[in-house]
Amino acid sequence: MPVLVMKFGGTSVATLDRIRRAAKRVGVEVANGYDVIVIVSAMSGETNKLVGFVDETSPLYDAREYDAVVSSGENVTAGLMALTLQEMDVPARSWQGWQVPVKTTSAHANARIEEIPTENITAKFAEGMRVAVVAGFQGLSDENRITTLGRGGSDTTAVAFAAAFGADRCDIYTDVDGVYTTDPRVTSKARKLDRIAFEEMLELASLGAKVLQTRSVELAMRYKVPLRVLSSFDEQTDEAGTLVCAEEEIMESNIVAGVAFSRDEAKMTLISVADRPGIAAAIFGPLAEAGVNVDMIVQNISEEGRTDMTFSCPINQVKRAQQAMDKAKASGEINFHDLVADENVAKVSIVGIGMRSHAGVAAKMFAVLRDEGVNIKVITTSEIKVSVLIDRKYMELAVQSLHDAFELEKAA
Amino acid sequence: MPVLVMKFGGTSVATLDRIRRAAKRVGVEVANGYDVIVIVSAMSGETNKLVGFVDETSPLYDAREYDAVVSSGENVTAGLMALTLQEMDVPARSWQGWQVPVKTTSAHANARIEEIPTENITAKFAEGMRVAVVAGFQGLSDENRITTLGRGGSDTTAVAFAAAFGADRCDIYTDVDGVYTTDPRVTSKARKLDRIAFEEMLELASLGAKVLQTRSVELAMRYKVPLRVLSSFDEQTDEAGTLVCAEEEIMESNIVAGVAFSRDEAKMTLISVADRPGIAAAIFGPLAEAGVNVDMIVQNISEEGRTDMTFSCPINQVKRAQQAMDKAKASGEINFHDLVADENVAKVSIVGIGMRSHAGVAAKMFAVLRDEGVNIKVITTSEIKVSVLIDRKYMELAVQSLHDAFELEKAA
Repeated sequence: MPVLVMKFGGTSVATLDRIRRAAKRVGVEVANGYDVIVIVSAMSGETNKLVGFVDETSPLYDAREYDAVVSSGENVTAGLMALTLQEMDVPARSWQGWQVPVKTTSAHANARIEEIPTENITAKFAEGMRVAVVAGFQGLSDENRITTLGRGGSDTTAVAFAAAFGADRCDIYTDVDGVYTTDPRVTSKARKLDRIAFEEMLELASLGAKVLQTRSVELAMRYKVPLRVLSSFDEQTDEAGTLVCAEEEIMESNIVAGVAFSRDEAKMTLISVADRPGIAAAIFGPLAEAGVNVDMIVQNISEEGRTDMTFSCPINQVKRAQQAMDKAKASGEINFHDLVADENVAKVSIVGIGMRSHAGVAAKMFAVLRDEGVNIKVITTSEIKVSVLIDRKYMELAVQSLHDAFELEKAA
Repeated sequence: MPVLVMKFGGTSVATLDRIRRAAKRVGVEVANGYDVIVIVSAMSGETNKLVGFVDETSPLYDAREYDAVVSSGENVTAGLMALTLQEMDVPARSWQGWQVPVKTTSAHANARIEEIPTENITAKFAEGMRVAVVAGFQGLSDENRITTLGRGGSDTTAVAFAAAFGADRCDIYTDVDGVYTTDPRVTSKARKLDRIAFEEMLELASLGAKVLQTRSVELAMRYKVPLRVLSSFDEQTDEAGTLVCAEEEIMESNIVAGVAFSRDEAKMTLISVADRPGIAAAIFGPLAEAGVNVDMIVQNISEEGRTDMTFSCPINQVKRAQQAMDKAKASGEINFHDLVADENVAKVSIVGIGMRSHAGVAAKMFAVLRDEGVNIKVITTSEIKVSVLIDRKYMELAVQSLHDAFELEKAA
């Protein structure tokens, strides 16, 4: 029988009633003739509670023990979902990550899936089991210890199972009814997209849209797993939600698919750095070693052998970045006058595969922001996106203006 | 290095503060030169919450999924305990049951430990790890599924580890400071015992004293593991708590060691059963098959080929017993007039290895109850105990009178 993967996030399994509701959806797909693999998150609030316990116990925790603790929420939901399905006379059983086993790297708290053997679950399907409920977010390292995949990791679990089992589709049930042109809380003109290309979704996810974990989209793109994002609270129809799919499957699309934004950015400027060959490596090497995720970089024109170097990073890594730079300065690796952090910035991005074939999209974006009096601090571009760093107070204005200017409220 | 097993129950790990307090105790034993195996329960309330989820989801649940769900509480505590010890610079790590693995039977929700391989943990001790924190109550079946050992099963986990590792002692930390002559809530004259023989503890545990799981005492007796019951809330001294040990290690003891009682009994009477050879088998066979734990049995004198048969069983098995008897009657296996259940009874028992060498102990018990006007409904005896079933309203009176009559407030 064809296989379908269905993933239910924390809010979709927050109570026993919601688990029943989710189980009914699963029952519909079983009746449609699918063998279903259900991936579940922890009941909402549970993982945060467990993370809180770990943080309070040991601020610089052993990530192996962190994983052993925080993975337990998914196990509870998996068992309860299997029991609920059994009550509905749907043959089901639960699997914890180590039982499959979901083999991962040993990068605890941020592991990557390496392999998902399909034999055990396939054998049970052959015996008549119709639903395998798998605890999301977790795996097993070579050292036989529990790993977790990072926050939002259950999305990645779902896509990895869909790829391993050659599923027809991977449905991600969440608390929003699809992917929007931008966050509807910022502009009421935001429109739900029926379809979006993997590449666009990948940019949107990594630029701040929280609907899917970035890695899950990467994986779906690599293995060509059609991904549907839909709400577990609405009635289900064939047209519900947003289908994330290959570019070729989208007939018409706007030049710009969506506007993403992130408030979690900080701008760091190294003032008066001695400009010499290798200076970028001398700065960004130590930052990478310290685990700082540098995003945008801009270097001023050099004057009298000195320059300013600006970069952005997540706001919760500012302290780490400062320590790394102070250490590099103390060891003589680099020489700068001052390091200034600006935490009142936001990143706004436009994303669309149409940009590849349309010139002038970036220029139009800059003109729109200029007309609104928004000063641009840093710019980065890729083939299908343009991002700018601006003062945080202008963020909503920038998003609304760009949404209007590119007419995102209208379907292509 | 010698090995010590320390088990902390739910109230001893109910909060992060209490886990820290427990970890300090562990640190003291590490400083004393022990390699320590710590067995932890779930934080108090957690297992009940999970059992509640399962019961609400599926009243006649699949016990394999029940085990997958309810075992998760212990995993959380094990990780948090390991992190707490690491914070105190004590090298520690956690193990879940399947990681050891604690091999059990496949009797889900009531599995028995079959084997505990020691290689993994011993190897870590050899590398310098000082504490192995193991999630109690859980194991792994041959089918690679999680099992649990029944309520209170962490005591059994602790004793089984102590036996497997040849531990010097198994310390059970709980919310009471030892084993008492009877429940102090029933008589203020109840006295903490410094020592008690395995056999006595076994009878007390199976007769209703809730301080230790019966199977843990059985196991301790079979493998001669000295067991110490003590409070995690008191200051620790060498004389703290109660040592459960071999008879030979107790110099002097009272004839009666303690008075146990249980409110969880029901009396069932089959009225006017046709008396014939094999009738007992015809009655108790079907009851055993239905999973009814019959405790006491008494058969009236036969009159005109018919008799009454009375037995006791746990109060929550009354319905099951009735169904089994109705089915046996319908199939013609047995013939009786009526089945009467009396749920207003209690069982009171006196226990002591001294009874073996002292005659007249049972007679004295019956006289004490007679003098208080307490009617005895059923009696059973063994070499070291006498149990009676009485009206529940007399239970406290019976316990107090027997405690006084056998002078249990005085040490031997």
